[in-house]
Amino acid sequence: MTFSATILTLYPEMFPGPLGASMAGRALREGRWALDAVNIRDFATDKHRSVDDTPAGGGAGMVMRADVLARAIDAVADTRPLIAMSPRGRPLVQERVRVLAAGPGAIILCGRFEGMDERLFEARPIELVSIGDYVLSGGEMAALTLLDACVRLLPGVMGAASSGDDESFEMGLLEYPHYTRPVEWEGRTIPEVLRSGDHARIAAWRKAMAEDETRLRRPDLWERHVGARVQSPSGARHGQKD
Amino acid sequence: MTFSATILTLYPEMFPGPLGASMAGRALREGRWALDAVNIRDFATDKHRSVDDTPAGGGAGMVMRADVLARAIDAVADTRPLIAMSPRGRPLVQERVRVLAAGPGAIILCGRFEGMDERLFEARPIELVSIGDYVLSGGEMAALTLLDACVRLLPGVMGAASSGDDESFEMGLLEYPHYTRPVEWEGRTIPEVLRSGDHARIAAWRKAMAEDETRLRRPDLWERHVGARVQSPSGARHGQKD
Repeated sequence: MTFSATILTLYPEMFPGPLGASMAGRALREGRWALDAVNIRDFATDKHRSVDDTPAGGGAGMVMRADVLARAIDAVADTRPLIAMSPRGRPLVQERVRVLAAGPGAIILCGRFEGMDERLFEARPIELVSIGDYVLSGGEMAALTLLDACVRLLPGVMGAASSGDDESFEMGLLEYPHYTRPVEWEGRTIPEVLRSGDHARIAAWRKAMAEDETRLRRPDLWERHVGARVQSPSGARHGQKD
Repeated sequence: MTFSATILTLYPEMFPGPLGASMAGRALREGRWALDAVNIRDFATDKHRSVDDTPAGGGAGMVMRADVLARAIDAVADTRPLIAMSPRGRPLVQERVRVLAAGPGAIILCGRFEGMDERLFEARPIELVSIGDYVLSGGEMAALTLLDACVRLLPGVMGAASSGDDESFEMGLLEYPHYTRPVEWEGRTIPEVLRSGDHARIAAWRKAMAEDETRLRRPDLWERHVGARVQSPSGARHGQKD
């Protein structure tokens, strides 16, 4: 089964965009995943090919029409999850990315920032996903971001060197700090422990640093991490970063 | 003053990418903002043009070298804020986007996901910014997302129709639901209040819906919203969504 993404958008020319470069692009050319961008405007029915209209009740901007969006969705719908990128959605986390990447792909609906007619979300099984608490010009950049996160986890994309197992969020922690050559730079040296060759000490140091980083920078993540460790019977695993 | 972004990246071909389309692309061509992508590899000094090396202490992947990155930064540094996209950074919020968009632009450093040598962050005044709690193949997609959020707020980009004043996060709330024609679709009608023409009732309904949505979908945002209202002497404003 190949991970397959279908994007419903008014800007199909934005795809694959940055996903055509680097490892995602190579994987796309190698057939490790598939991408299809469908223009929502093709599902308009009037002579102006309208996809939006003024908001009921007044206000700025335009709202995308439920009928046009539903026709576009119905034309491509299959067993893949149906996702709409929206700042009102559930915040994307790495755990959801892992589940999506292990599945058949996704159909991703990209709206304009003014929004889509709410009735669409009552009438079709759409998961609203937000990539963060900020506003974009449309769902396209959010869809590219979601896909980038998924594609790098597909088999054969990152290569053997990087498993993705030992990085930020995998244990609910931020990643420990990295160092590489030169050993001394601008008077700063690589921490001694990392040059010790003592794998147990290195592992302990990295675990402590990941915990410190998370506690300091992201008390919200830290609270969840500690909570999960206390509540879960198999929670001891959460303490092992390396 | 034109908002000017300089991207330090190993993949300059990813820019402007999706920012070359739609309103961001038009604004770029009209000179409302400027974009410059600089290849970090141009600042390598050995014959292999190395920018990374194996992690001190062992482990998968490669780490970007502090000396090469610092040379790239020093070559373009000016009064603009210096930002590195990283999952270890401070989560991006709309408030930060507004401040950045009102400023001279940004120098944005895009790392690989394995990370950059930590000494760089001690030696240069770099703000670490995360666009969300997930891992990307590199900082490039995060930089594009940050820029998309900024550019749409620049004068003249969105046009008069959309001020960006009345949307998700502007009051610490999610946006209220939108509706547009047709009035009836698949047996579902636009809520009566939005068809009433009674602007005060409509404003009250939207405010209540925004609050309900936030409370239900994002208790974390709601808690902060209520906290801000209680603590701030001018907090009454927070209750006014429209």
